[in-house]
Amino acid sequence: MEEIKRQREARKAEKEAAKLAKKAKKAAQAAEREAAEQATAIKNDITFDDTSSICGDYEVVTSKTSNLRTYTPLISTVSGSSAWLRCRLQSIRVKGGSVFLVLRQDTFNTMQGVFFKADLPDSDDSARMIKYMKSLTAESIVDVYGSVVDSDVKSCTVGDREIKIQRIHAVSKSDPVLPFELEDAARSKEEVEASQDTERPFPNLGQELRLDNRWMDLRVPANNAILRVKSGVCQLFRESLYSQGFTEIQTPKLIGGESESGAGVFKTDYFGSEACLAQSPQLYKQMAIASDFPRVFEVGPVFRAENSNTRRHLCEFVGLDLEMAINEHYTETLSVCHRMFKHIFEGLESRYGAEMDVIRSQYFSEPVEFTEEPCIIHWEDGIKMIEEAGFDVGDGMQDLTGAQELALGKVVKEKYKTDFFILDQYPSSIRPFYTMPMAHDKRFSNSYDMFIRGQEICSGAQRCHDATMLREVIKSKGLEEGLQVGGGLEKYVKSFENGISPHAGAGIGLERVVFLALGLDNVRKASMFPRDPNRLTP
Amino acid sequence: MEEIKRQREARKAEKEAAKLAKKAKKAAQAAEREAAEQATAIKNDITFDDTSSICGDYEVVTSKTSNLRTYTPLISTVSGSSAWLRCRLQSIRVKGGSVFLVLRQDTFNTMQGVFFKADLPDSDDSARMIKYMKSLTAESIVDVYGSVVDSDVKSCTVGDREIKIQRIHAVSKSDPVLPFELEDAARSKEEVEASQDTERPFPNLGQELRLDNRWMDLRVPANNAILRVKSGVCQLFRESLYSQGFTEIQTPKLIGGESESGAGVFKTDYFGSEACLAQSPQLYKQMAIASDFPRVFEVGPVFRAENSNTRRHLCEFVGLDLEMAINEHYTETLSVCHRMFKHIFEGLESRYGAEMDVIRSQYFSEPVEFTEEPCIIHWEDGIKMIEEAGFDVGDGMQDLTGAQELALGKVVKEKYKTDFFILDQYPSSIRPFYTMPMAHDKRFSNSYDMFIRGQEICSGAQRCHDATMLREVIKSKGLEEGLQVGGGLEKYVKSFENGISPHAGAGIGLERVVFLALGLDNVRKASMFPRDPNRLTP
Repeated sequence: MEEIKRQREARKAEKEAAKLAKKAKKAAQAAEREAAEQATAIKNDITFDDTSSICGDYEVVTSKTSNLRTYTPLISTVSGSSAWLRCRLQSIRVKGGSVFLVLRQDTFNTMQGVFFKADLPDSDDSARMIKYMKSLTAESIVDVYGSVVDSDVKSCTVGDREIKIQRIHAVSKSDPVLPFELEDAARSKEEVEASQDTERPFPNLGQELRLDNRWMDLRVPANNAILRVKSGVCQLFRESLYSQGFTEIQTPKLIGGESESGAGVFKTDYFGSEACLAQSPQLYKQMAIASDFPRVFEVGPVFRAENSNTRRHLCEFVGLDLEMAINEHYTETLSVCHRMFKHIFEGLESRYGAEMDVIRSQYFSEPVEFTEEPCIIHWEDGIKMIEEAGFDVGDGMQDLTGAQELALGKVVKEKYKTDFFILDQYPSSIRPFYTMPMAHDKRFSNSYDMFIRGQEICSGAQRCHDATMLREVIKSKGLEEGLQVGGGLEKYVKSFENGISPHAGAGIGLERVVFLALGLDNVRKASMFPRDPNRLTP
Repeated sequence: MEEIKRQREARKAEKEAAKLAKKAKKAAQAAEREAAEQATAIKNDITFDDTSSICGDYEVVTSKTSNLRTYTPLISTVSGSSAWLRCRLQSIRVKGGSVFLVLRQDTFNTMQGVFFKADLPDSDDSARMIKYMKSLTAESIVDVYGSVVDSDVKSCTVGDREIKIQRIHAVSKSDPVLPFELEDAARSKEEVEASQDTERPFPNLGQELRLDNRWMDLRVPANNAILRVKSGVCQLFRESLYSQGFTEIQTPKLIGGESESGAGVFKTDYFGSEACLAQSPQLYKQMAIASDFPRVFEVGPVFRAENSNTRRHLCEFVGLDLEMAINEHYTETLSVCHRMFKHIFEGLESRYGAEMDVIRSQYFSEPVEFTEEPCIIHWEDGIKMIEEAGFDVGDGMQDLTGAQELALGKVVKEKYKTDFFILDQYPSSIRPFYTMPMAHDKRFSNSYDMFIRGQEICSGAQRCHDATMLREVIKSKGLEEGLQVGGGLEKYVKSFENGISPHAGAGIGLERVVFLALGLDNVRKASMFPRDPNRLTP
């Protein structure tokens, strides 16, 4: 009995010992795991002055510190030296103990960042770095510190060097889900089309998806560069006009009457009365002439409430407007405009070469060809050319269709070797009331349009500066209501009664110039946040 | 009987002869008068290529001829040579056979024109010239041909020479009645006030009369120069920012929601939905940062439907806006702004000296005094200064009144010898929702206003770039409706979720800068065609 009891207890003790051992082992394992986890735990909310951290998110930048470090532009890094970079994380690839990152700046400069497990003496540090980098999302903004070394990375624009990462911190993390991949958005139409019959066709991103997420669409190098070129067109426009004696003006966009007849107008309540959104600065730039500003220009928004859903219309665009006193003839204005456009076309190629290259790599185009002296086609000659190209032009007094304009552009290009030309002497009946009729034949007028590749970018004319003549034409067009006290034309005509220089001018659509000079397929690409009848946001 | 009869007949014949003689004399006189009138008759509708006419109105310029003549700028005329001038006729004085004209160009350059009866060999020609000149009205635009000779005319800006008129033609005639005399409109307030106790007090032209006829008011040299200086401020603003790596952008003015809370907004129907007129480009310039434009600026209209009838508010003004990515601290932005404002203040004096002189001769002011490095006053120190100046500042967390700002400006001017300073770290409660709170004390914020002579010209801040933080503050301010699909803030906050650089910026009122830098009494003087609650025209 005793023996049996002893044996039983011994077995029991044995079991219990085994249990305890197992428990101890488990506890030891857990402690080990916890220790390992603690060793590789990533501290977040790191401040800029914390020099001990090698990785982890920075706390939201709230201007706690300043000028603690100098950032080196990615393209200015030098092999053999260390640098801090602030970049977008374009992509990240982890392969066991190796991490490869593509860092991006200025939308199109890229450089490789690398990290290898063996780079750090402490394996916990290495594990922590890799774990943190794995957590980073594409399009996040990161601060990276490391040593720049020689390399050969064909896929990056800065390919002769790379940065060996010693510290990395997210400054602003991106949501892991992007509206679309930038890589997909940056492909040319030709490339996407060519891929459709292959095993891995590229996605064809629709325009609406892009515009709904325009802040992503604008990170595409070509799209970003288009807007930089647009900024350049403004600068070149002003530069040329300043050098030709112009003064910049800003005219009101809220006005007491419609500025042009015909085109749709947005209206708003103005402290109990009705105001219109200016469809052009027309009447006001003419009043500037009456105010003794002999040459004026304006860069400002223009509003058109027209329900046109085409690839070349916007409901809000930027007008490049100019108006100038003339001595005898409006060809003085044509010369000013031609000089200005030449300055723009030349400047785009000479000063914005990098941007033009980026744009053309996605949207191919040839530089705008232009003549040294203005290429002016008279209306009647233009009509003949269009007729000879096989179009029915009726009595030759109707406005041209888009197809006719394109055909004319083609003929002019062949005949005069220019993409840029002026069609002059339009029929009076298809021009606004303030247009000066031609002296010898009032069926025509001293007015003109300007074209790039057969598409209109500019409309202008000598204006009727004689108050009596102007009143008559206003009445004959049935617009006399505007002449009454408080009417939209009252003060305009009145300003001509105290002496006014003969004058002519032009209104240019900035987005038209950009999209046509760059040979793009849609004017929306030249607007940062385009407005059309279906789009008011973002 | 016979004798009597003869005598009677003789008397009758005598009488008849006298009658006939009288008649003949009358006829001769009439013929003479007619001949004289015909000799001095003025032919009008003269064309540019008619070289035989010495006077008379030109027909309305309709571009019949071109480049027939070269006009010499009045200030470039040379004594001893002949020239064509195109000028405004400022005034005309006929004294018997002598005519004196004041010719004007560029609003403030004047030169005397003279004509004496004896100048022409043919007395009919002389009579015709004088008759025509008498018919000319002030402010008409005239073409004048003549020989420039030495002279001494104290009352003209070009006083060392005058033009002896050989030909004169009106190009555009002014109505004889002007809304007011330019001479009256060009006097300084001090001059008008001093004259009130004299026998001939000068008229005090009201602002409304001037603005109702703004095209005349702008011919006043000082008023015209203010607008030229405004053009200069734009140019200097852009110049400085281009040199600091900025890109110009244009953001939409028609937007799907209010861009700022609080301020009044103009609304319009947008193809069936409602659009607001942008109260600032705030949300869009921040989205430009999200779109990888690291530094952007915009010059464009800003709309405020606020019923404020003050001397410093407009319902439509020009915003000079900028936004930029920062590395660590928004002082990076303050440095950029300070550099830019310095460039403006320096440029106005160095490049626009002529305009500044003209303006100061009517509206006296001292140049803006500024410091080499930014003069930054912290809110709490500013409050102390204002309190010491005798104001009740409550708990120091309310926005400043105009009087308090002026007092602060005075103290700062005395203490730091500067008219331009920055008030920094405003209380969070009085700043817009998108303002970044201060790191260590959330009652205050990373925001600032800039002042000229104690009056605000600019407001700015570091923005809250963290989407989570931003959503919370939007909810806490009761604006969560804007976050819903289609709401005014939905896409704005969404654009922060794909990684965004920390950023700060500023919004400057162009007209404020101009009117305060020039020490003017009313912001309307800095707007070509100002808009306030009572004015929508011209």
